[in-house]
Amino acid sequence: MEADSNAKAARWLEELGAISDESTQLTRTFLSPALGQAKELVARWMHEGGLEVFEDQAGNLIGRLDCENPEAGTVVCGSHLDTVRNAGKFDGALGVVAGVMAVSEIRRRGLRLPYHLEVVGFSDEEGVRFQTTYLGSRQYTGKLGPAELAARDENSISVSDAIATHRPVFPMPPAGRVPLGYVEVHIEQGPVLENTGVALGVATAIAGQTRARIFLEGKAGHAGTTPMTMRRDALAGAAECVLFIEEQAKADKGIVATVGELRIESAASNVIPGRVSFTLDVRDGDDEKRTNFCTDIIRGMEKMMEMRNLTFRIETVLSAPSVQCSPHLSSVLAERVSTRQASCPYLVSGAGHDAVAMAEITEVALLFVRCREGLSHHPEEYASPEDIALAVEVLTDFLSTFPHHE
Amino acid sequence: MEADSNAKAARWLEELGAISDESTQLTRTFLSPALGQAKELVARWMHEGGLEVFEDQAGNLIGRLDCENPEAGTVVCGSHLDTVRNAGKFDGALGVVAGVMAVSEIRRRGLRLPYHLEVVGFSDEEGVRFQTTYLGSRQYTGKLGPAELAARDENSISVSDAIATHRPVFPMPPAGRVPLGYVEVHIEQGPVLENTGVALGVATAIAGQTRARIFLEGKAGHAGTTPMTMRRDALAGAAECVLFIEEQAKADKGIVATVGELRIESAASNVIPGRVSFTLDVRDGDDEKRTNFCTDIIRGMEKMMEMRNLTFRIETVLSAPSVQCSPHLSSVLAERVSTRQASCPYLVSGAGHDAVAMAEITEVALLFVRCREGLSHHPEEYASPEDIALAVEVLTDFLSTFPHHE
Repeated sequence: MEADSNAKAARWLEELGAISDESTQLTRTFLSPALGQAKELVARWMHEGGLEVFEDQAGNLIGRLDCENPEAGTVVCGSHLDTVRNAGKFDGALGVVAGVMAVSEIRRRGLRLPYHLEVVGFSDEEGVRFQTTYLGSRQYTGKLGPAELAARDENSISVSDAIATHRPVFPMPPAGRVPLGYVEVHIEQGPVLENTGVALGVATAIAGQTRARIFLEGKAGHAGTTPMTMRRDALAGAAECVLFIEEQAKADKGIVATVGELRIESAASNVIPGRVSFTLDVRDGDDEKRTNFCTDIIRGMEKMMEMRNLTFRIETVLSAPSVQCSPHLSSVLAERVSTRQASCPYLVSGAGHDAVAMAEITEVALLFVRCREGLSHHPEEYASPEDIALAVEVLTDFLSTFPHHE
Repeated sequence: MEADSNAKAARWLEELGAISDESTQLTRTFLSPALGQAKELVARWMHEGGLEVFEDQAGNLIGRLDCENPEAGTVVCGSHLDTVRNAGKFDGALGVVAGVMAVSEIRRRGLRLPYHLEVVGFSDEEGVRFQTTYLGSRQYTGKLGPAELAARDENSISVSDAIATHRPVFPMPPAGRVPLGYVEVHIEQGPVLENTGVALGVATAIAGQTRARIFLEGKAGHAGTTPMTMRRDALAGAAECVLFIEEQAKADKGIVATVGELRIESAASNVIPGRVSFTLDVRDGDDEKRTNFCTDIIRGMEKMMEMRNLTFRIETVLSAPSVQCSPHLSSVLAERVSTRQASCPYLVSGAGHDAVAMAEITEVALLFVRCREGLSHHPEEYASPEDIALAVEVLTDFLSTFPHHE
């Protein structure tokens, strides 16, 4: 590893973070001008590192280091180059920078590996432009479906039109590559590693998610003239639900449950709330546990609202299964981490990643890097140069000795 | 009492309720065309009942039945002729109709009383046009202040301009009238009488009110990546406050406390709420009790939010003292009620009335009439013809034998 690699990774992330579609904040969306500029910058680093650069029709940037055996499979790493609006500089970009640095280092060392290496900068993970996620990685895996292709942006351009009219700057990647596995470096986007006091952790799964909206109905009334005992206050009912959800989630190790929105219909300070709705977001790496938890809290809330003489209705908006990381890849990855820090925590990722799409075609592993205060999707998102350098070292090790089954 | 008085009161309220500034709903505002038409209709009833009709500069309609002694004082009854937007037909109008019917009945009976009688239809109680209440009754009592006179409507017309340019249709009332007391008939606007199973009740006070806004601050975070134990969820804190307020108010007989608005800053279903604000509305007939209650619950909430590591801030928006009804007038009024129903409940009025303004110049009493489901400020507001007739009877009795101290 080069002596100045700490400084180098931080400098690269700064350079990438300066490329934006907006002048006052960082925003790079699917196939936007800034995304094109970002890819040219990363392609330059790839070239400098001795990687061959390709680009597919959906704008995924691919840097390859071929081994001697043309029949060999390919070990893939990377993350995404697009961002949310008003983003931080680490979400996505870190995984691409780490991948380019690791593969370049392997080339510099002259290692002769029995597999090809590939770094991908996916062109869309956040889905800002089309309100749909994983466009880049789904194109890469060949799983882009008709619904996603038909989605339109605010200028009524469809995904399929955007892809069809995109002119790649770099050659198309060779066909018939066989993936042996995918590893992604990503900031944690949560506070666990920081609170544990370590730089790196390994995700065992990307959590499944239930999203629902709950509707309570009581009776609106005059705040001055309705005695407490004659009220059917939908907000007081919602408050009971919010605390019950919190209490049950706290009692169940690992699960997270959140009420993020709450609306009172025709709210006024002098009117007893008659109708309230709120959202519920439940996530866990274990789908059965999540489903049982939801069943239990819904039953509990129904009973409590019955006691309050409030009607209770729930609409499930989404029920997405979890994605399991490869136990084998994850344990090897954790071993590599453990040689560099006291212990390697296993985490469940509460957020989605390109690894979710990649898991449809190959085994995946996910290396998390500590980030400040768990902050993400925010300009103050931050991971330290030291932690990033450690992640690059681990990734270099892991890609050098990839535990493949060939 | 005339045999058809049930039907008559209901018919009058229907007729009055048909006069509106808007074609699809009932709305009559201060000095509006519909208010003028409503006054002409009521004036016709006053004339028919043998009352002399006057109108003051602020558009208050006054029907008088003078006694033989020109030096005598005046017993006043009435309520307001303006309405909220999309109003019911009983709020305000009932007190005017009841007053005209009662005084007309006293005239019909040829009773010779030692005091003058006066029915007032106040021109503004709801304050819809100028966002300020009691314009009519405050003009009547001579207490209209500079702030109220300077208030402007949506066409930038000030209250003082509106009054100055108003052309009364009826003669100005005689100067130097001395009020002996004021009695107002009004729908309860709450569910207590209906739940008690009686038609009428007497208010002992109009509740004092504390209005405040409470601000909680924790930390926003990703709903998927922040473990339950590391959260500082401002909505969960607010939920605890809402339930605490409810519990404390329930434990304290008579007081009412309401959280009617609650807002989550930058709410999203997948974000842990970082900042929440909510309103607090506390009312009671006893000012000291209300103030102590507020002090106690604020202290309690502060402690609970400290436990949750949330910052707590409160802004008091309003602290209005209660207005006491005359104990003597109220007990006599309750006696009159008790001759007609099993018992006469005493209530505290949680809503404001013209009696609040009148209490500045004379003793007041307030007779409540049962209304369906406590509904008010709503087109479905309803009081039965039988209950209204009973109220007119009680008012007739009370005005016939007014317990004055001359």
